[in-house]
Amino acid sequence: MKVVTFGEIMLRLAPQGYLRFLQEPCFQATFGGGEANVAVSLAAFGVDAEFVTKLPCNDIADAAVAELRRQGVDTSDIVRGGKRIGIYYLEKGASVRPSKVVYDREHSAISEATEDDFCWESILEGADWFHFTGITPALSENAAKITYNAVRCAKAKGLKVSCDLNYRKKLWTKEKAREVMGGLMPYVDVLIANEADADDVFGIKPDGGDVENGKLVRDGYENVAKQLIEKFSLDAVAITLRESISANDNNWGAMLYRNSTAHFSRTYPLRIVDRVGGGDSFGAGLIYALLSGKNDAEAVEFAVAASALKHTVEGDFNRVCVSEVEQLMNGSGSGRVQR
Amino acid sequence: MKVVTFGEIMLRLAPQGYLRFLQEPCFQATFGGGEANVAVSLAAFGVDAEFVTKLPCNDIADAAVAELRRQGVDTSDIVRGGKRIGIYYLEKGASVRPSKVVYDREHSAISEATEDDFCWESILEGADWFHFTGITPALSENAAKITYNAVRCAKAKGLKVSCDLNYRKKLWTKEKAREVMGGLMPYVDVLIANEADADDVFGIKPDGGDVENGKLVRDGYENVAKQLIEKFSLDAVAITLRESISANDNNWGAMLYRNSTAHFSRTYPLRIVDRVGGGDSFGAGLIYALLSGKNDAEAVEFAVAASALKHTVEGDFNRVCVSEVEQLMNGSGSGRVQR
Amino acid sequence: MKVVTFGEIMLRLAPQGYLRFLQEPCFQATFGGGEANVAVSLAAFGVDAEFVTKLPCNDIADAAVAELRRQGVDTSDIVRGGKRIGIYYLEKGASVRPSKVVYDREHSAISEATEDDFCWESILEGADWFHFTGITPALSENAAKITYNAVRCAKAKGLKVSCDLNYRKKLWTKEKAREVMGGLMPYVDVLIANEADADDVFGIKPDGGDVENGKLVRDGYENVAKQLIEKFSLDAVAITLRESISANDNNWGAMLYRNSTAHFSRTYPLRIVDRVGGGDSFGAGLIYALLSGKNDAEAVEFAVAASALKHTVEGDFNRVCVSEVEQLMNGSGSGRVQR
Amino acid sequence: MKVVTFGEIMLRLAPQGYLRFLQEPCFQATFGGGEANVAVSLAAFGVDAEFVTKLPCNDIADAAVAELRRQGVDTSDIVRGGKRIGIYYLEKGASVRPSKVVYDREHSAISEATEDDFCWESILEGADWFHFTGITPALSENAAKITYNAVRCAKAKGLKVSCDLNYRKKLWTKEKAREVMGGLMPYVDVLIANEADADDVFGIKPDGGDVENGKLVRDGYENVAKQLIEKFSLDAVAITLRESISANDNNWGAMLYRNSTAHFSRTYPLRIVDRVGGGDSFGAGLIYALLSGKNDAEAVEFAVAASALKHTVEGDFNRVCVSEVEQLMNGSGSGRVQR
Amino acid sequence: MKVVTFGEIMLRLAPQGYLRFLQEPCFQATFGGGEANVAVSLAAFGVDAEFVTKLPCNDIADAAVAELRRQGVDTSDIVRGGKRIGIYYLEKGASVRPSKVVYDREHSAISEATEDDFCWESILEGADWFHFTGITPALSENAAKITYNAVRCAKAKGLKVSCDLNYRKKLWTKEKAREVMGGLMPYVDVLIANEADADDVFGIKPDGGDVENGKLVRDGYENVAKQLIEKFSLDAVAITLRESISANDNNWGAMLYRNSTAHFSRTYPLRIVDRVGGGDSFGAGLIYALLSGKNDAEAVEFAVAASALKHTVEGDFNRVCVSEVEQLMNGSGSGRVQR
Amino acid sequence: MKVVTFGEIMLRLAPQGYLRFLQEPCFQATFGGGEANVAVSLAAFGVDAEFVTKLPCNDIADAAVAELRRQGVDTSDIVRGGKRIGIYYLEKGASVRPSKVVYDREHSAISEATEDDFCWESILEGADWFHFTGITPALSENAAKITYNAVRCAKAKGLKVSCDLNYRKKLWTKEKAREVMGGLMPYVDVLIANEADADDVFGIKPDGGDVENGKLVRDGYENVAKQLIEKFSLDAVAITLRESISANDNNWGAMLYRNSTAHFSRTYPLRIVDRVGGGDSFGAGLIYALLSGKNDAEAVEFAVAASALKHTVEGDFNRVCVSEVEQLMNGSGSGRVQR
Repeated sequence: MKVVTFGEIMLRLAPQGYLRFLQEPCFQATFGGGEANVAVSLAAFGVDAEFVTKLPCNDIADAAVAELRRQGVDTSDIVRGGKRIGIYYLEKGASVRPSKVVYDREHSAISEATEDDFCWESILEGADWFHFTGITPALSENAAKITYNAVRCAKAKGLKVSCDLNYRKKLWTKEKAREVMGGLMPYVDVLIANEADADDVFGIKPDGGDVENGKLVRDGYENVAKQLIEKFSLDAVAITLRESISANDNNWGAMLYRNSTAHFSRTYPLRIVDRVGGGDSFGAGLIYALLSGKNDAEAVEFAVAASALKHTVEGDFNRVCVSEVEQLMNGSGSGRVQR
Repeated sequence: MKVVTFGEIMLRLAPQGYLRFLQEPCFQATFGGGEANVAVSLAAFGVDAEFVTKLPCNDIADAAVAELRRQGVDTSDIVRGGKRIGIYYLEKGASVRPSKVVYDREHSAISEATEDDFCWESILEGADWFHFTGITPALSENAAKITYNAVRCAKAKGLKVSCDLNYRKKLWTKEKAREVMGGLMPYVDVLIANEADADDVFGIKPDGGDVENGKLVRDGYENVAKQLIEKFSLDAVAITLRESISANDNNWGAMLYRNSTAHFSRTYPLRIVDRVGGGDSFGAGLIYALLSGKNDAEAVEFAVAASALKHTVEGDFNRVCVSEVEQLMNGSGSGRVQR
Repeated sequence: MKVVTFGEIMLRLAPQGYLRFLQEPCFQATFGGGEANVAVSLAAFGVDAEFVTKLPCNDIADAAVAELRRQGVDTSDIVRGGKRIGIYYLEKGASVRPSKVVYDREHSAISEATEDDFCWESILEGADWFHFTGITPALSENAAKITYNAVRCAKAKGLKVSCDLNYRKKLWTKEKAREVMGGLMPYVDVLIANEADADDVFGIKPDGGDVENGKLVRDGYENVAKQLIEKFSLDAVAITLRESISANDNNWGAMLYRNSTAHFSRTYPLRIVDRVGGGDSFGAGLIYALLSGKNDAEAVEFAVAASALKHTVEGDFNRVCVSEVEQLMNGSGSGRVQR
Repeated sequence: MKVVTFGEIMLRLAPQGYLRFLQEPCFQATFGGGEANVAVSLAAFGVDAEFVTKLPCNDIADAAVAELRRQGVDTSDIVRGGKRIGIYYLEKGASVRPSKVVYDREHSAISEATEDDFCWESILEGADWFHFTGITPALSENAAKITYNAVRCAKAKGLKVSCDLNYRKKLWTKEKAREVMGGLMPYVDVLIANEADADDVFGIKPDGGDVENGKLVRDGYENVAKQLIEKFSLDAVAITLRESISANDNNWGAMLYRNSTAHFSRTYPLRIVDRVGGGDSFGAGLIYALLSGKNDAEAVEFAVAASALKHTVEGDFNRVCVSEVEQLMNGSGSGRVQR
Repeated sequence: MKVVTFGEIMLRLAPQGYLRFLQEPCFQATFGGGEANVAVSLAAFGVDAEFVTKLPCNDIADAAVAELRRQGVDTSDIVRGGKRIGIYYLEKGASVRPSKVVYDREHSAISEATEDDFCWESILEGADWFHFTGITPALSENAAKITYNAVRCAKAKGLKVSCDLNYRKKLWTKEKAREVMGGLMPYVDVLIANEADADDVFGIKPDGGDVENGKLVRDGYENVAKQLIEKFSLDAVAITLRESISANDNNWGAMLYRNSTAHFSRTYPLRIVDRVGGGDSFGAGLIYALLSGKNDAEAVEFAVAASALKHTVEGDFNRVCVSEVEQLMNGSGSGRVQR
Repeated sequence: MKVVTFGEIMLRLAPQGYLRFLQEPCFQATFGGGEANVAVSLAAFGVDAEFVTKLPCNDIADAAVAELRRQGVDTSDIVRGGKRIGIYYLEKGASVRPSKVVYDREHSAISEATEDDFCWESILEGADWFHFTGITPALSENAAKITYNAVRCAKAKGLKVSCDLNYRKKLWTKEKAREVMGGLMPYVDVLIANEADADDVFGIKPDGGDVENGKLVRDGYENVAKQLIEKFSLDAVAITLRESISANDNNWGAMLYRNSTAHFSRTYPLRIVDRVGGGDSFGAGLIYALLSGKNDAEAVEFAVAASALKHTVEGDFNRVCVSEVEQLMNGSGSGRVQR
């Protein structure tokens, strides 16, 4: 099984612990980005995972590639060139103080890449699944075109295609997102979204939900998924359900809608170590579960357990293996020491 | 709007995380002290804030002044001289283990300062508000006299004066505190206290409250505030209400009593990052809110939200801006990531 | 009062905070092991505590001895020789992710020690109490024999003997454990166990308990203790009761059964800083309490309060003094700052 | 005495110690840039120093401003707006391995600033000296224009103007540098250069020098200075003389040429802690010395001693005071402990 | 070009900076070992490098494999199984205090591997060069047999074979080393040794050299190389020449003897950052240079420059690329900043 | 052999590496003080060493006692009481920048101790040697009296007494030092001084020496020692000879004068890791050497080698054992790795 993901990987600069930006003159320096996170997580599950992007020729970008390699991700189709690697600064929230992201990703190599940079015919040769998120086409006109080329080629070669809507209001408007994402949807089999994405991008709301104050009405999600499937002839829609109690405490679950049936997972009450990449780890869990032939109910449980674990791991990447996910799925989540 | 605060700033030496004292051979070294904390918080709100104290001529004290400057506090009236900067060692508590403070503040420059060191006429020129806490007059006989000179001058020049009772049993007895604070009260407009201070200093108890086991009876506080206002002809009394569930979890709110009306704020359930300076950040929030013309109900909400955020920030200082406070006041406190 | 404990002390290598193994190229390097932990805790209570083991002649083992000395433990009977000091790698769990222990303790000096290495006649001279855990005899055939020599000598010299069952499935089988521990029990006065040990080692189950999902049926424990006392003519049995809600949150209490009476302690809801050594700190608390003449009800409360505090202290060792334990026992556990 | 400097301040990201880029997932995060470094150094000498630039409205830029404030630099004319703060990554060299700089400064707020952003009439009001380096006009066409506006205004208001040539080949070509810098020279009084700058920018070579292999022929520098003074009607030219033995060991001195006389300073053999900002600290020392009325021989000695000390201080900024510089000038440089 | 190396990779635990063992409770945790170091260095030069070993199935060994992957080394033939990964503790020396190594490598998976674990026919398929050091056969009888199988197979398949004598007195006696290494020499083409190895293993001394006091007589080395070539029909012998002035300062060079001609490299005076792996980086440099067709004089210069740079890089691995080596070879080694 | 030392131990707060004070918000926190350093060094040599002082009852002082215990020093006669533990802030110098010490030791428990606090009769029972430095009597009048009581008692009980002059100009004047130290000399057998002490305290100058510029004329020291021995009827005088090239590089040696003969040691060129405590480690080396029966020439070589090693160890304490010292004495000092 081979999965290819395409998008941007950024240098992530974060203060230690719960410090505010530059409260101490130090940044934890790791790497992350939606599609890279999915590839890393899949590699940790033993999947042959490849991440495709464009990165400049400098030591910082070299380190990004090396880190992906460390995680077991195939980096052989990463294009080198362009001016810079994007950066995001992350300040971890605590209690009533939310986490804060400052982007410095404009003019990154991938956002200034051109269609010629990527030969999808050869990149996707031998692959079974292609994954992208709504962040990639939001980077630039060219990035949107490249994504379009990728999904069209993937479809033509018979790959399954998954997309995580991942709406980012700092990157584009809802109108622009609707237009571009709408054009990509015909090539998508599995669509992943959180509670707000479907509304932000396609104007489809969960009935009766009031996300901000943490009250989720699950029934409405079934209806949203149904609308999405009908509108875009999708195979399946997965919606992650996050109830934010505080920056430290979230309840986390998901629904997978397929074949006219909604499968709701168990809900995990989570004490958060690092929330970033939570959605991506869900996507990776879902892809792994579907590729490895789990049924829909198992698949959503696997994906949610995988992403529950992600919330306990520092950094964007979900460094957990299949047996750890299965142990959580099948156990109590009571966190007893493993000696 | 210009606010002047007067008191002691100390070197704060704390082990990392939840380590016990010197469990590892390292101290986080920052600065803090009730009135300095208020000045820093006000500066972060955009107020022209000045902190007045006396500090010795050495590199450690230079760093204290530089840090205040970094926070945007005016340090131009800090007197230099004397022998040492006070120190407090802080061990952060967790769960059932309380935080622990070891003072090494005797013989500090400010505690051995003399009345001649400070010319309040010129210091307070152009200022609108003067703030001090019950810690300053507790430092020494001279410190009490200097504080008296300050409030008398402030009053004469038409400034508003606020005082946070802040009783510290390691610095003086209840009897001495009552005598000295009683002499200062006639010059005070706004008095701030926590659940225990009014009792410790003036023997005024909340009816029916049993603070130690975390059960707060709010009604009693109204009565306490009323008594304080009557006794000292105050304009307003604010009482912070802390329910300590563990060293990690507190519920936090406050009451502002003014014009015969008690305004109780919303209560925030807090997961604590650093509890020290929580009261000071409330004081700063209240001063800011009153100076900027908020009504009483808004003022106490602003002050409580500001100090709720402080509990999530490492160090004595509250490094939050007005928009962050307002976002918390007006939102759910659910701590969702801000991208 | 002098207490001697005997067993293995290991180098403990743990990533910082909640990082996964080698996520960053750094290990916190401390020392720990069941019986060493008990000795350290007793020394912190002011007891004359000695730890006996065998350690190789190298700098790492020297550091282990020095650290014990720092904690006030008598190290004068530690035998030096053999090849290596055992190691355990510890990854701290969070939320739904359990803590993980990787052992590298085979071929340690103590596991390859011989009976001739220890002259118990002289080691135990002047001691009042001897303590060991079920880990020591599990290390090797020789270690079991040395333990047997120790308890027989202790008994002959009139010492009280305590044992913490501490079953470790990675070290031996249940069958082997039952055989060896069964042979040691006749020399034991006070037996300590957690919810699972009595079942694992002696096949005695608490009635109706389902430990994994965190529901403890306390009544069953009384029955287990009774059976143990009858089977081995013990003086007392203590059972620690841990309800694991997550890797961060546990409820913690214990029962002391003696003279046909079960004394259940108060239950502490704990936010965990470091869970390893929790049981050992209970054992130390119990030994201290019994040696210092507390009655059974007080003894179990002291032991539980001591070990509740341990859960808030980084490392294997419980760095708390008697007054801190008593303050918790007699207070609310609300964790208010001590200024 | 008031000095204004104008240029770019960047976030400096450097691995700890002598680690290669991202060998560990951490960056030391400080700030620096030629003209900011000069302002900080002057403030440490007690001069009223102001730094002018443009920075975006985000937390990282806020921290840059706060850090300047901590160093005592006036930041009141810093314009806020634009997209990003420039970054430079620094890997510290050791022995035969040179230090390495990776720039990510394109599209910074200051490089995209416009002439309208700065009203030099009011900024320079009350100032005595204006300083810039050859880096600022190299940033963009606009930056060159703004610099031109600044020097023209400075000259018109009677300020002394100093310029450090500081040629950066990654920012512009020699041809472009010659054209732009040539246009600015008529407004400059004091020109500072290192061994290579005069050649790179104006094609003026020291006779017989072979800088790369560390052999400096001092006599040639006198001739270079003379040519520069004649060509641009300068008041004085200072040339820093660095003999690079290795990344750790440099010999450091300078020459000040004025009134047809060359004053060569003492040469310091330096063990380097941080070499970046060495030239800037020389510039600050020279400005201070000239402003405070030292004669030419003293001035170059002060400037060289100040910058010798800089090489022992981590970060771009020279955190030394006048008495430290004078102690080095007048002493042996033997580095005996000061108790 | 593909190079395969075979040997042991260990966890390296080192205190920070120049701290003595466990002076602070922390270890830098990286990985290293002679042949792994060679593979990593070759990968950094762009060579297709593979490292072969046996490692246990646990998280620590997983991290070793991941780190090799990060460095670009092929890990696909690493056998998983056995009990433990070897450890070496390293205390970095300074000035007159030598570095200190404490081994804890007994019973490692590779030392207990069996001949069946490695199918050299398939491992060496497609490779051009095989490299091992004298450490590998010293690990155990089996390890010696496996090494023998490897070199015999390599020779049969037409690979070049290189060996670094690397005598370790803690692993075996000189007599045993002579016997085993003597049996392997017939399969070796290129032999690498330091000043002492040839004497320790084969009893061949450099004439007139007195290594301990740092005086190297170069002429003697030519004679040693000649003897080795004659005795074992080698193609080439390289001898590294280290003059130890202190733990911080070494002079470093080498000689390559081939076709009856000795080529002495330039000597680099080095300020040491990390000396471990210095010899391995020389080996890698030599293999690269010979494989890429450099002549003998260039080859030894490349290898020495590569290893000179290694001395400036923390950890066992030489993280430098070909252009950095060439820049040093062709430059002055003056360490000027690269902007 | 038992040695008792008496004096002050302080908390030492130092920035990491070569950072200036509070450049980062962190202090390395260790302990040190002349006589404590001697006791620790002796304990590391296997001597039964005891340190006597007075320390307050708080967690910081507890940690000082625990650290001494860790180093193997007997702490059983340390008196607990008084207000505070003294502090010294240390900024490590580099190259031309000298190290800087800021004292905050006034009002420490030992400086305010009284004669009644110490019963020398019982403290010195069974001891063979008593050591103090000129710092202890400089702390206060009482401290001088207590020191006098100690040396008188030591002499009466037949102990050897050694004194390190250690003049500290921040603690007392030369006149006061001469008076007090003059009164203690009659009880001293072995006097240790550096190049400046004899002059500062007793006005005895080395002929022709010019210490500041690093040129030492050794012949003059013989004359100084002779004068000291004659004046105070001493048994032996040792003078340490430090040539300061820079804060990083010193040459270090010593002379022992006894029985009318001067024994000059070898001179070590040192690259300094931590210079503080260098003199103390010499004193400890000398005491050990004399107690263990080495002849005068060997004794001074041992003491100098011991203290040469100290310069390579972080912190005040010399963490080296006898075999390490002997290896340096008998070797080349070339710092080759010990595997």
